[in-house]
Amino acid sequence: MWADLGPIGRNPETGGYRRYAWTGADADCRTWFQEQAESRGLAYETDRNGNQWAWLGDPSQGDAVVTGSHLDSVPDGGAFDGPLGVVSSFAALDELRARGARFTKPLAITNFGDEEGARFGLACVGSRLTAGKLTREAAYELRDADGVSLPQAMEAAGYDPSTIGADPERLARIGAFVELHVEQGRALALSGSGSAAGSGDAVGIASAIWPHGRWRFDFRGEANHAGTTRLVDRRDPMLSYAETVLAARREAELAGAVATFGKIAVEPNGVNAIPSLVRGWLDSRAADQATLDTVVTAIEKAAREYADRHGIDLDVVRESFTPVVEFEHALRDELGAVLRERTGREVPVLGTGAGHDAGILSGSIPTAMLFVRNPTGVSHSPAEHAAEDDCLAGVQALADVLEGLACR
Amino acid sequence: MWADLGPIGRNPETGGYRRYAWTGADADCRTWFQEQAESRGLAYETDRNGNQWAWLGDPSQGDAVVTGSHLDSVPDGGAFDGPLGVVSSFAALDELRARGARFTKPLAITNFGDEEGARFGLACVGSRLTAGKLTREAAYELRDADGVSLPQAMEAAGYDPSTIGADPERLARIGAFVELHVEQGRALALSGSGSAAGSGDAVGIASAIWPHGRWRFDFRGEANHAGTTRLVDRRDPMLSYAETVLAARREAELAGAVATFGKIAVEPNGVNAIPSLVRGWLDSRAADQATLDTVVTAIEKAAREYADRHGIDLDVVRESFTPVVEFEHALRDELGAVLRERTGREVPVLGTGAGHDAGILSGSIPTAMLFVRNPTGVSHSPAEHAAEDDCLAGVQALADVLEGLACR
Repeated sequence: MWADLGPIGRNPETGGYRRYAWTGADADCRTWFQEQAESRGLAYETDRNGNQWAWLGDPSQGDAVVTGSHLDSVPDGGAFDGPLGVVSSFAALDELRARGARFTKPLAITNFGDEEGARFGLACVGSRLTAGKLTREAAYELRDADGVSLPQAMEAAGYDPSTIGADPERLARIGAFVELHVEQGRALALSGSGSAAGSGDAVGIASAIWPHGRWRFDFRGEANHAGTTRLVDRRDPMLSYAETVLAARREAELAGAVATFGKIAVEPNGVNAIPSLVRGWLDSRAADQATLDTVVTAIEKAAREYADRHGIDLDVVRESFTPVVEFEHALRDELGAVLRERTGREVPVLGTGAGHDAGILSGSIPTAMLFVRNPTGVSHSPAEHAAEDDCLAGVQALADVLEGLACR
Repeated sequence: MWADLGPIGRNPETGGYRRYAWTGADADCRTWFQEQAESRGLAYETDRNGNQWAWLGDPSQGDAVVTGSHLDSVPDGGAFDGPLGVVSSFAALDELRARGARFTKPLAITNFGDEEGARFGLACVGSRLTAGKLTREAAYELRDADGVSLPQAMEAAGYDPSTIGADPERLARIGAFVELHVEQGRALALSGSGSAAGSGDAVGIASAIWPHGRWRFDFRGEANHAGTTRLVDRRDPMLSYAETVLAARREAELAGAVATFGKIAVEPNGVNAIPSLVRGWLDSRAADQATLDTVVTAIEKAAREYADRHGIDLDVVRESFTPVVEFEHALRDELGAVLRERTGREVPVLGTGAGHDAGILSGSIPTAMLFVRNPTGVSHSPAEHAAEDDCLAGVQALADVLEGLACR
């Protein structure tokens, strides 16, 4: 499966993936998914929000067990974030068939659309729409950097955007959703005995997703000539931006949270022009809501002080926000029990700062997540990696979990 | 003339101009220039480097008087930077013809290509090539943000790039070059009596161009997930960039110079990704070489300290540099004498931090510059402005100067 999926949307210069929602690379990934479904005799469908589904058994029976993840990527993302969950889902089904498992419940494998939000700036659009956490009207307002709206992009990709929106009937048929994902930190790698690969735990279970959000900081000054404008006559928004970047790091350190300015847009962005606009995006997350509020409030306060001092107008817009997600304890404990029985060891339970479709859906249906060890913790980068043995252990664990849920 | 030129390359959203070298907007400006030349019965030609020339009289006679400027712009630049010099040149010729002036020397009006360097990152490419200050080989290496090389861009615009390079024969035929330009600071506006427009001096003469240069700072860290990577595990180049932006301002203030980070490129530039690369361009200028050296050395030293502290690799590349340009004293004094005689007042002489084709050519031929008052000093911005009366005073002054040089 990896051989067919590997080249899609890969940038030969960086080695990273650029699989953005509703682009050609995304379409190729979707074709791959459909082929995997059909080659296994699964019933393939797309839902009203463009998410892909591959069904074994009759969905209308209800109490379905669903697994899957996403195939899209951040700019120059790695090969595993998303695809590992989808590939492992198909591989786990193959493993269960090889075991001769008898399914008592319908099983589905999914590919949720636009999880990373790389194109339209909002993550988990496919699952948000389905769960009713993003309205049709709000989705219609989403635009990419070229001004193309989400419905225009869906239409260009051959999908009908007119029916997007909440899909409670579909969710009502699902009894449990399990998403396998490469870990995006080093908790599993650090939890091992510390020797070479193979020690420690290859697989963990998610406890919670940290609350997180994205804020857009627009610093507006006055464009002017970089050579002839006296420093005292300047209203240079780059200075306030720079001070805010450093304040974000400082406040995150103080609070034990994370805060990142990773995306910026500058106008006019000329070497010899003082900018008129510096737009920076803050991504911040913390273990609990109160801490996150404290951090973001402090960063915004610092930014306003800097902006005032330099005659800069500042707008801060919260572009997205996801409250803390505690995965359902009953399902989490059930997964833990199954894996303990199969492997004879206690499986680590860990929190994560990353958002996932499983987090979005956890408000509507019981969801759980499995993490596969990431030796360096590197994520959203071409250097993202998981060892083959660990990936195979992930497939075994997912197969064990699905068997426990769907074959009892 | 302004009516025809005004809409070309104008961005309706910002009101600024985007006339980059060898683009469609540039081609439209060039067509406008050719039409202006031909409608006045001037002999039109382009030289081997794509600069445009409109000749009155026989160039081969030698000792020609040349005036002109450029028509290209920075991103979202103003209407006057460049075009005012070209429009005023044609208007001054009209004025001299209306005066019944008899020319004893050949006269030419020019439009130098790619003065702003907005596309290929190097300013004054047309005049640099002609003056032999940019080799053909180096020019062939220039690439725009999309990877298009300068020769490819010239070819796409219908010009033959194979013959670009030094043009000493052309320069040998020129006795004096005078460039009129909107002032890019407020020296003239501040030198007036301080009351409403019309007071003070509408026109000044350039003494010198500050030495200036552009340096590219490449901060390379490690792309990673903004939500899951612990702060201590990060190698985030945005932090070192931000510290360097603030250091640049501090050092420039200390030295009475200017230093600006106005352009930035970030990879992968995703909201939830720690950047792998932050590339910032520093533009710095000072009244003398020693001061500029001090400022840039201090900024680079600070940047290296910050980069080392965060595990960031830093490359600093000087992309362009222009030493101090003292305009020829004899020609400058001659202009002063002509204008004093015509207007009955002493014309102010002022330095500038901006580079110009006149500065490039001053190493090869006698050059001088006239500045037209800029009430706000704003430049490289849609808000750039010069009052109509001041523009007309500029045309009169240029006509006076050309008459003094070419009709004696």
